[in-house]
Amino acid sequence: MGMKIYGIPKSCATACIMTCLGEKVIEEYELVHVDLSKGEHKSATHLAKNPFGKVPVLEDGPLTLFESRAITGYLCRKYKSGTDLLRNDSVEEAAMVGVWLEVESQQFNAAIYPIMFEKLMKPFLGQTPDQSVIDEFLLKLGSVLDIYEARLSNSKYLACDSFTLADLHHLPYIHYFIKRTPYGDLITSRAHVKAWWEDISARPSFVKVAQQMDARPILN
Amino acid sequence: MGMKIYGIPKSCATACIMTCLGEKVIEEYELVHVDLSKGEHKSATHLAKNPFGKVPVLEDGPLTLFESRAITGYLCRKYKSGTDLLRNDSVEEAAMVGVWLEVESQQFNAAIYPIMFEKLMKPFLGQTPDQSVIDEFLLKLGSVLDIYEARLSNSKYLACDSFTLADLHHLPYIHYFIKRTPYGDLITSRAHVKAWWEDISARPSFVKVAQQMDARPILN
Repeated sequence: MGMKIYGIPKSCATACIMTCLGEKVIEEYELVHVDLSKGEHKSATHLAKNPFGKVPVLEDGPLTLFESRAITGYLCRKYKSGTDLLRNDSVEEAAMVGVWLEVESQQFNAAIYPIMFEKLMKPFLGQTPDQSVIDEFLLKLGSVLDIYEARLSNSKYLACDSFTLADLHHLPYIHYFIKRTPYGDLITSRAHVKAWWEDISARPSFVKVAQQMDARPILN
Repeated sequence: MGMKIYGIPKSCATACIMTCLGEKVIEEYELVHVDLSKGEHKSATHLAKNPFGKVPVLEDGPLTLFESRAITGYLCRKYKSGTDLLRNDSVEEAAMVGVWLEVESQQFNAAIYPIMFEKLMKPFLGQTPDQSVIDEFLLKLGSVLDIYEARLSNSKYLACDSFTLADLHHLPYIHYFIKRTPYGDLITSRAHVKAWWEDISARPSFVKVAQQMDARPILN
């Protein structure tokens, strides 16, 4: 039984999984579209796969996995093909991949998600964005990116001098942030962050996924 | 050079590291107290270890690591002693440890943290708790715990039938939640969650850490 991903490419979390599969040169999988606008992610069928009612879900043989960061970790541990995204051959590099994966989750995502929710999701849901929330989290995101700028002036990528899963997890959100909000200069005004972004976003694995993220109808 | 942990046992994240070290039967480490009330976590010395200005930090030989979930993952990968907290001998169990580690981070912590911040940290900082925030997140936490109750009726622990790092990461926050807030019945009114809590909180590794979390002066 081949792998199945339940989700949509326009979901950042699903886009992470698809980019990871690209890096691991895994082409044999089926993307099963979950129509969020019809609430399919809250259906009994989907809740049986992920009780939290979210996408993506990965089915691989007898395993049903959810939480995108758990899924990419699983794929990287199981499949040795393609890019070595966890750097497990080096205790030091693997440790730093772990640190910067958590930085993405706890610091970067915590700052960028509320902005994206206000700017993209609220209009989609027919609600009005709250500019005070956006302004608050733009400040927080700027502080996080100041730390990234310092880090990337000493290290080609976040964890080490190789592209890893820690970099990969940033791709979909920054892509939308630059394309769909007026705040992209938070990325492009920082020289090392800009160079890092131009490098990682040009990887063929992501270029292919980004095309699907941008396909019409666009999210906003 | 022995390991050094920079933090305080009253910090939930530091308490996680100490509990993990207990499970791995690692006793050779130094706990270097960082006085948060004096802002030592924002000092240049500490910012050189963790640019985000938070505790804990782990120094192990040439490595300086931050983000508590990255630190416990590192300890479990590096040290084979004591409890097998990642279950890497089984692809299926290791995958489920990954899923439930992320559930703790993205669902459980996202719901319980704002309650703890309002109830414990705000009074400590001389601020007034916002009951509407508490009420909002109590509802979210209840929904998360409903899913835990269903999971724990089919599985002795969250990831599988063995105690893993996914369970461990819940210990400090639930300990404070029951001891220091009036909302502990969210845990104890759910039969399987209650039995799981009584089991995991009785582990010697945590009993020892909990004594330090509760030492006077208490946080609130």
